[in-house]
Amino acid sequence: MITTTLHPGSGGAGVVRRTVLPGGLRVVTESMPTVRSVAVGMWVGIGSRDEAPEHMGASHFLEHLLFKGTPTRDALEISAAIEGIGGEINAFTAKEYTCYYARVLDEDLRVAIDVLADVVTSSLITPDDVEAERGVILEEIAMHDDDPSDVVHEQFSAELYGDTPIGRPILGTAESIDAIGRDRIAEYYRRHYLPTHTVVAVAGNVTHEQVVELVAAAYERAGALGGDAEPIPPRLSGEGVPPARSGLRVLHRPTEQANLVLGTTGITRTDERRFALGVLNAALGGGMSSRLFQEIREKRGLAYSTYSYTSQYADTGQFGVYAGCLPSKIDEVLKICREEILRVVADGITEEEIVRGKGQMRGGLVLGLEDTGSRMSRIGKGELVYDELLSVDEVLARIDAVTSEDIDAIARDVLTRPMTLAVIGPYEDKDFSPFVSV
Amino acid sequence: MITTTLHPGSGGAGVVRRTVLPGGLRVVTESMPTVRSVAVGMWVGIGSRDEAPEHMGASHFLEHLLFKGTPTRDALEISAAIEGIGGEINAFTAKEYTCYYARVLDEDLRVAIDVLADVVTSSLITPDDVEAERGVILEEIAMHDDDPSDVVHEQFSAELYGDTPIGRPILGTAESIDAIGRDRIAEYYRRHYLPTHTVVAVAGNVTHEQVVELVAAAYERAGALGGDAEPIPPRLSGEGVPPARSGLRVLHRPTEQANLVLGTTGITRTDERRFALGVLNAALGGGMSSRLFQEIREKRGLAYSTYSYTSQYADTGQFGVYAGCLPSKIDEVLKICREEILRVVADGITEEEIVRGKGQMRGGLVLGLEDTGSRMSRIGKGELVYDELLSVDEVLARIDAVTSEDIDAIARDVLTRPMTLAVIGPYEDKDFSPFVSV
Repeated sequence: MITTTLHPGSGGAGVVRRTVLPGGLRVVTESMPTVRSVAVGMWVGIGSRDEAPEHMGASHFLEHLLFKGTPTRDALEISAAIEGIGGEINAFTAKEYTCYYARVLDEDLRVAIDVLADVVTSSLITPDDVEAERGVILEEIAMHDDDPSDVVHEQFSAELYGDTPIGRPILGTAESIDAIGRDRIAEYYRRHYLPTHTVVAVAGNVTHEQVVELVAAAYERAGALGGDAEPIPPRLSGEGVPPARSGLRVLHRPTEQANLVLGTTGITRTDERRFALGVLNAALGGGMSSRLFQEIREKRGLAYSTYSYTSQYADTGQFGVYAGCLPSKIDEVLKICREEILRVVADGITEEEIVRGKGQMRGGLVLGLEDTGSRMSRIGKGELVYDELLSVDEVLARIDAVTSEDIDAIARDVLTRPMTLAVIGPYEDKDFSPFVSV
Repeated sequence: MITTTLHPGSGGAGVVRRTVLPGGLRVVTESMPTVRSVAVGMWVGIGSRDEAPEHMGASHFLEHLLFKGTPTRDALEISAAIEGIGGEINAFTAKEYTCYYARVLDEDLRVAIDVLADVVTSSLITPDDVEAERGVILEEIAMHDDDPSDVVHEQFSAELYGDTPIGRPILGTAESIDAIGRDRIAEYYRRHYLPTHTVVAVAGNVTHEQVVELVAAAYERAGALGGDAEPIPPRLSGEGVPPARSGLRVLHRPTEQANLVLGTTGITRTDERRFALGVLNAALGGGMSSRLFQEIREKRGLAYSTYSYTSQYADTGQFGVYAGCLPSKIDEVLKICREEILRVVADGITEEEIVRGKGQMRGGLVLGLEDTGSRMSRIGKGELVYDELLSVDEVLARIDAVTSEDIDAIARDVLTRPMTLAVIGPYEDKDFSPFVSV
């Protein structure tokens, strides 16, 4: 059992420590002595990217099943244990990881750890539960299909990455969910939900020793501790990520608004240029003072919601701009999106925008630190998917260090790649031409 | 200028103080000495209930226009002032009030107060801005129309309250927004956005004196301070709230899921029985351990999202259950909703459910208190719409005091009223019969 102090914090606050338990289970904690709540997350390094095509949606299906029952708790007992003490418990599945989390009062730390460790290590996955939950997943897919702003992002990913693991929907499809058998899911669970693939992250008014003791005891009870396995290293590559291309996907839907995403591949999670891309993104479409918001919404009233975004994965990323507008306005909106992208590539962004963009990134980080959930996510995800966990001060320093040249360079790289366009709206055969690189 | 201490807090934390400035402007603050952020809200006692039918949507339209410009700041300067320091600024319009708010680092308190006071007191509302923003509102209405889970709640309100101020949509309709002229909105602004109708609420690492000084200076500069007007009292009644009735509204939409709300009138905001109704609501549909979630989702897999809710207004309220399910499942889901409602009326809820429901309400309150935004909302909304601002301990005591008899009594009152049903889905002429009271 090796414990290291990753960040010393100051005055007892912000101390980040890490312990590797026998069997390769990692525990990371961050001390927040002035709060009363504690956030606990169990991060498993498995997601929809790890699925075979015929089992699309298995990671997310499994995430649901973990709340259905263990040898010692049924579904009601799992939720009642946390809700009865005023806490919340939930989970989410991403392309490269899955997270189970709870937020409770600090005095209830043990309950949160016990319940989460129980579901992560000891799910029964009974055939009856699989059948009932299959219905729930099909409902979730249908609900998601009724939200065009969700669907357009999924369609964009599918067009950008094609029929590859990272291009497929996290929820799967009604067909794939209908087809997955109970044994396949149980096997997926046994194979991937291992202590070596798991990080337990806790932030709040706790000590590291207390957390390690409770986690070790819970995993011990489940027979999931022991052995000399090492934690898996961060995922650094993935299967089948194609290069950026000029793609176009138009989905006919009888919606009131058209929804569009225009974008391309971005950069990887560990790319040092991510801080420069963050400042660029803030200036182009990161808030109400951004160029897209000002040009599309403030000056012309063409959309309610418009923004740009970046997302990062192990071996790729995305950069995209989104807008929702009346179907008759889409040509004008697309024209502005393209012009603003070209303008940034040609002229860069202003000194004022750089200062503002850095302020936005800094503020978002610092203001988020009062929330136990945000801190827990930062250290849990950080431990699982990054090579190193930067301290908040280190992140702030890297944001500050971004130069105008860095921003120009990343704009000329990412924003000149071939662009893919996804559109959802009441169009039968409208002519959309994808953006051609400059 | 009269300052009162509403709650003494303990150890310098949780002190709630209130000052009435000349002209009737109220300032309430809550001290949170261990945080770095501060939340500032300006609450104006005006909302969609105050609109004439032909100006439906005026309050929300106005809320948008306030971000467009003042004599000293244009739209970009308003958003950039806050975003450049890493903060966030936004607003929302409700049926009975409108709130403008910002969250920034404590050292930036002055910026947040200056910008918010500027937009609330000194908006220009130019004809050009009105025209550009009219387009944005029409986009927002279209976006909202594309979200069936939003639309079903609005349809339920419309059916429950009929064509009355509280039954109309907050956003208005495309027709009403097209028809509102600039002068009408400017007049609405001048008439209602008065210091007497406004509460400035601040929570965070601040002193009351510092906040009062900054607010007074900002209002002084705007010429909005002075006079001997008294703050308006809380709204205690409204125009035209009809009694509960058996209503039915079916909206045809080609959605994947049907969305339904089944419910009736609830209780008013100041009704002492609201704590008992809260516990009842938690047990019936307040979380994953609730009856509706267990019966509809856990056991039968018939929905992804299902819950019950209560909302309170000055002179009425709502109690409703929501579910989204595949169109073929709606009869079964509705049957369960009705059975669970009848069962609670007939047999009450169990001791275990009472304990859990109280724990849920308590935890939600206490866990929310670490967030400056939640604390700001509690005191700001409290000052504006309640007769008295309860301390957190007082709220906890009232939750604890709820008895099984209180819950039975409120169930037999509210849940036996005639029920209204709103459904959205791919039904042309399906036969839905609204719930008939027991």
